[in-house]
Amino acid sequence: MSDRYASFAHSGPGKALVKRLGLPDPPRLRRHRPGDPLAPGPVLLGAAPGGRLLEPVRKMLASAGVELRDAAPAGENGRPAPHAALIFDATGITDSTGLRALYDFFHPVARALQPSGRVIVLGTPPEACDAPREATAQRALEGLTRSIGKEFGRGTTAQLVYVTPGAESAVESTLRFLLSGRSAYVSGQVIRIGPAAAVNPPADWDRPLDGKVALVTGAARGIGAAIARVLARDGAHVIALDVPGAGDALAGVANEIGGTALQLDLTAPDAPARLADHLAERHGQVDVVVHNAGITRDKTLGRMDAGRWDSVLDVNLSSTERINDVLLERGLIREGGRVVGVASIAGIAGNRGQTNYATSKAGVIGLVQSMAPVLAERGVTINAVAPGFIETKMTAKIPMFIREAGRRMNSMAQGGLPVDVAETIAWFASPASGGISGNVVRVCGQSLLGA
Amino acid sequence: MSDRYASFAHSGPGKALVKRLGLPDPPRLRRHRPGDPLAPGPVLLGAAPGGRLLEPVRKMLASAGVELRDAAPAGENGRPAPHAALIFDATGITDSTGLRALYDFFHPVARALQPSGRVIVLGTPPEACDAPREATAQRALEGLTRSIGKEFGRGTTAQLVYVTPGAESAVESTLRFLLSGRSAYVSGQVIRIGPAAAVNPPADWDRPLDGKVALVTGAARGIGAAIARVLARDGAHVIALDVPGAGDALAGVANEIGGTALQLDLTAPDAPARLADHLAERHGQVDVVVHNAGITRDKTLGRMDAGRWDSVLDVNLSSTERINDVLLERGLIREGGRVVGVASIAGIAGNRGQTNYATSKAGVIGLVQSMAPVLAERGVTINAVAPGFIETKMTAKIPMFIREAGRRMNSMAQGGLPVDVAETIAWFASPASGGISGNVVRVCGQSLLGA
Repeated sequence: MSDRYASFAHSGPGKALVKRLGLPDPPRLRRHRPGDPLAPGPVLLGAAPGGRLLEPVRKMLASAGVELRDAAPAGENGRPAPHAALIFDATGITDSTGLRALYDFFHPVARALQPSGRVIVLGTPPEACDAPREATAQRALEGLTRSIGKEFGRGTTAQLVYVTPGAESAVESTLRFLLSGRSAYVSGQVIRIGPAAAVNPPADWDRPLDGKVALVTGAARGIGAAIARVLARDGAHVIALDVPGAGDALAGVANEIGGTALQLDLTAPDAPARLADHLAERHGQVDVVVHNAGITRDKTLGRMDAGRWDSVLDVNLSSTERINDVLLERGLIREGGRVVGVASIAGIAGNRGQTNYATSKAGVIGLVQSMAPVLAERGVTINAVAPGFIETKMTAKIPMFIREAGRRMNSMAQGGLPVDVAETIAWFASPASGGISGNVVRVCGQSLLGA
Repeated sequence: MSDRYASFAHSGPGKALVKRLGLPDPPRLRRHRPGDPLAPGPVLLGAAPGGRLLEPVRKMLASAGVELRDAAPAGENGRPAPHAALIFDATGITDSTGLRALYDFFHPVARALQPSGRVIVLGTPPEACDAPREATAQRALEGLTRSIGKEFGRGTTAQLVYVTPGAESAVESTLRFLLSGRSAYVSGQVIRIGPAAAVNPPADWDRPLDGKVALVTGAARGIGAAIARVLARDGAHVIALDVPGAGDALAGVANEIGGTALQLDLTAPDAPARLADHLAERHGQVDVVVHNAGITRDKTLGRMDAGRWDSVLDVNLSSTERINDVLLERGLIREGGRVVGVASIAGIAGNRGQTNYATSKAGVIGLVQSMAPVLAERGVTINAVAPGFIETKMTAKIPMFIREAGRRMNSMAQGGLPVDVAETIAWFASPASGGISGNVVRVCGQSLLGA
């Protein structure tokens, strides 16, 4: 879906008008194209004394071909030359007074980032710190990172990545995702990486899902179709599932990506068994399950009929639980498998007219958090994306004023694209992402809205 | 601080203009006045089958003199008659399909609330549920509650209160706070109540702090002065602390409430020891410590000098840690004591131009979460408020357009008052709030802004 405003704002007359009227000037975001280098310029690497991630990260990125710098050389006008990314290892900070190291690193280079630059702060999860003072300082990193995301502009993203001690070797898939254009619309997020049962770096980072089987529900259009395409691009054989009514569109997607189309109403009583039979007979097991199917039936609670409540809860939440349970009971998710849910900002912040939808999406977050330890016993991860304003046929129908507010009220001053959600799911799905489970990552351009 | 817009919007000509132009029409919020009944009307009580909180809550509220109903009687026009509050015990919900009980309870009475009505949903903390399905359903409650907060309007607040099994007897102070006008500007919050070492219902609920000694830092003006006044109203002897430069204002507050003024620069190297000496000599021990002192020094990170970083971090975070440590080392916080911090929405969501402030306030959240288990060993709780847009001299200086946006972008369509923050702190400080620790509660009228 194109963003007409962004196109206009970048045209000759549009640019002049945007400037004259002080309208939002959405930057063109760097998005991933096959063959792109990991980072389109040098990456500045720093650390507070005693950090445990600096050296592993340095080795990882150097062997990935990234140009690394330990200090910012002066540019033409005396200012530091621009970087593609600023990465700071804050794991050595054990007390709030040590937070000064963040200022010392970021202050001189705050204006030395290329457009669509990247800021990555690495820390220790506060809950994994023994001393309260260390936990306090590590928790403080969140305020810095989220503020940088709101401040730097020009398509810069900023994230905080908490790495549990012992999980140092599990960070590569996350660094690659965050540095690349795949994470164009992900900003202001806190990501937790734990020790992984299995972190398997792919033979080819451009096709990490080679040989894998991926199921995507609601795949006929919009975000679901984008997920199917990106997982196929990454090498997976995709089973594209949607309701029988979506037949033609579904077949189109499946044909385009050399996948399989599967027509099934997931809320039917026999759906979990039929799906399980299909997977067992045709594929033996499945590696990646993306529960993307979802509906909205908006009404304020006082005017909502019971059908709207029941259908939204069943499609978005209960049917997912039933399918997960059958797939697990029958051992159909392969060891090292990946389960991904789709939550929503509404599930985090609540929304007027969406008591049913927000309840279902908050439930998806609960599902991810409660199933993560259960699935860990089988070497399977579970995570969710929480999309913000994404340009689809659905959002195109929102009344103009509300739509424009939703589009602009984020650090990117624009809506995201379905591919942005899909790339985030592909990162969760990577065999190298074994250390990532129980995470809910927003794909919202750091929307102002939240809880 | 008065809200001129709200006063205007409620005047004769203002009302007409507000309606004609579709301007926000902020409701007059019900705030607590001494002698007010707990709830200004009947309270509707419901539960999903198997709930463990319905009966304890019924007994508690009945003996507090609240008029309780189990069903909504029809009102004049066939609609249900209005209630002061809707309370639903959702602890019996063990599966997402059981969430339908929420719809069944709230749908018929969604428009049957008095102005400044109250919605309270009681649940089990997802992390305390054994089965993932139960944890998922309990987590889903958050989406419902936050949506109701955004939807019901007219000053209605909505909260989710998670009560750990075994902590049923610890909920009274929270129910009283939430039902009363003390929580006028608290909405969309998730509160966790755990088993308490000591829950001591006060002899007089109007003076729960009788005989207690409370320290309030930054007490000379604004929110700090309001905290001092409310704690004194609740019976405490208040030690009002501020920097020597605030002498006259500080003395004024202390005299007004019959407390003690203490002039001290908390960032001075000897401040913790001097404060500890003062407390030990004059009072023996202290019961309530409110770390309210805080400063802002806004600049974007690239333009921020090191002094702005250091001073904000030191005043807002590091000095608090030093003082806590000395008070604990010297055993000056009495068993059953209460420590309260002041965080901020900026510490949750980040803010442009406030990397220093947001880092310090995110640190306050870390301090609360990391110290809670340490202090629990001494029977002491620690919590924080996170104010949103509060009408003070500081916010009055914000440029008009940004100020109005901050004021209106919440479920109450208005800024809060210092007393709203103070009442929330008084709830934490109550001897009956022993089950509340490690909580960060926003006082923001359910601001749209968040993480």
